Amino acid sequence: LEHFADRILEAVRAKRTPLVVGLDPRLDQLPKPLFERISASSDPLSASAQAFEDFSKGVIEAIADCAAAVKPQSAFFEMLGARGVEAFEKTCDFARSRGLLVIGDVKRGDIGTTCEAYADAYLGEVLAGKTRLRSGVCDAITVNPYLGYDGIKPFIKNCRGHGKGIFVLVKTSNPSSADFQDLKAAGAPLFEHVARAVDAWGAEGVGASGYSDVGAVVGATWPGLLTRMRELMPKALFLLPGVGAQGATAEDVAGAFDSNGLGGLVAVSRHVIFAYEREPFKSQIPAQRWTEAVARAAREITDNLRKVLGL
Amino acid sequence: LEHFADRILEAVRAKRTPLVVGLDPRLDQLPKPLFERISASSDPLSASAQAFEDFSKGVIEAIADCAAAVKPQSAFFEMLGARGVEAFEKTCDFARSRGLLVIGDVKRGDIGTTCEAYADAYLGEVLAGKTRLRSGVCDAITVNPYLGYDGIKPFIKNCRGHGKGIFVLVKTSNPSSADFQDLKAAGAPLFEHVARAVDAWGAEGVGASGYSDVGAVVGATWPGLLTRMRELMPKALFLLPGVGAQGATAEDVAGAFDSNGLGGLVAVSRHVIFAYEREPFKSQIPAQRWTEAVARAAREITDNLRKVLGL
Repeated sequence: LEHFADRILEAVRAKRTPLVVGLDPRLDQLPKPLFERISASSDPLSASAQAFEDFSKGVIEAIADCAAAVKPQSAFFEMLGARGVEAFEKTCDFARSRGLLVIGDVKRGDIGTTCEAYADAYLGEVLAGKTRLRSGVCDAITVNPYLGYDGIKPFIKNCRGHGKGIFVLVKTSNPSSADFQDLKAAGAPLFEHVARAVDAWGAEGVGASGYSDVGAVVGATWPGLLTRMRELMPKALFLLPGVGAQGATAEDVAGAFDSNGLGGLVAVSRHVIFAYEREPFKSQIPAQRWTEAVARAAREITDNLRKVLGL
Repeated sequence: LEHFADRILEAVRAKRTPLVVGLDPRLDQLPKPLFERISASSDPLSASAQAFEDFSKGVIEAIADCAAAVKPQSAFFEMLGARGVEAFEKTCDFARSRGLLVIGDVKRGDIGTTCEAYADAYLGEVLAGKTRLRSGVCDAITVNPYLGYDGIKPFIKNCRGHGKGIFVLVKTSNPSSADFQDLKAAGAPLFEHVARAVDAWGAEGVGASGYSDVGAVVGATWPGLLTRMRELMPKALFLLPGVGAQGATAEDVAGAFDSNGLGGLVAVSRHVIFAYEREPFKSQIPAQRWTEAVARAAREITDNLRKVLGL
């Protein structure tokens, strides 16, 4: 069973990109040809779930050769209830069949056996007695640290047992992440305490690559913090949201990477998946060929990251 | 559209109990007659989802007259993937049809439009253009505050627009809640900062009952903190897990209630729903009649709470 960090860094090296494309199917931003099928349907809920699946698969095909992984955002799929969750699962399976790793953006966190249930659901195996009911469809997921180690331990157990990974929210990309994450306790902001915990939790899960199966989410919107974060978590893979629509650039995230250009994963969603909505793609590419815009946007970001990181 | 706090306190008064029964269908603790159907099935995943639904409905029928609400734990349903989520939705619908409010224990939290998606999914309405696809199946949900106000605001918007509620994790019942929640910033533990925020977020959502649609999760395992929590959040409904299997008693939670015996909701899961596993029920009640044990356990707790709170 290969180690999660080793697997994803192998993909980064092979494809020469740390790009992770976020799959956020928003109903009001779907490509016109897909949205029209919903309005025309007599069962608009099922048609929406099918549109989410088709959209995600279209994006996956378009970006497969210039991204290391995809990051489906569970919230959008959950909007459609059970039918949406089915589309989430199919999307994950499809991505893996196309050689992409799947980082489920689920931000789960709970305690004890409840946390074990989440861990089994997304990363491990679900058993009824000795009968295997299903396996988790993700290679890694995002998790929330507010409940402390009780809310992390069951995920780590699954990482070690199944070659999976987690990314713990440390310092998130949004403005009000300051509300609690920046509060100073014993001279250091809360997020530094979480960072130290991430380092400790991951210490026994370091793979051949030198990186751990316990990673960290650090907003690319705080470039000034990345060096400090790297100091506190030398073995953690960083999942870096905020490039693109939230305003951060490839240059901003450079501090998160090691001298080989590894250690960071750049998560971009809207700027890639809805590229057909903006110029120059909007004028150049007809609506039916929306995946071309997606492919070109992903290629642009990957080219930029290659230059900045020397990959 | 009635206010969430008014609705749930009306149920508490009418049924004379602040009991909220947690629905945590664990595969290895299902009643024997239900579990046997899984092992006998050629499609054990669907059979498990059906067993979760039947179990939850059995519990709901058994406790409907001595609980104000149910609290289905999403993690266990998510273990079964899309089929499990379907069972979650059917469970919520069934509970509401039996006059119980539904507090979805989902502990979600994200930012911006992603958070809006969660809010719509569980509390609001999901639209494709002007077509309504589905409505949220919960009256309230639990949410995680780590991302700050950005991760709370969309939920509050749905509370105000749809007569729904949220319970923000403030101080959780587990031992390692101390890891981060107890860190001292500016002289007060983090959870007190979150408590003050909960009070502020809820200020404009107070109903006729005097309580807000922004509530707080406070572990009943910390009875010494409840008076202070009440001081910091005078308008918040407290969802109090930890009574029963985690060791807290009805007396422990008394400090969370006002002089009318209102303001707190006592969440009990295992001690009620798996009552058939323990004495005296185990010896007295045959496996086929497991719902009798559940009904008696819920009745006992409600009787205790009535005495302690004078309801």
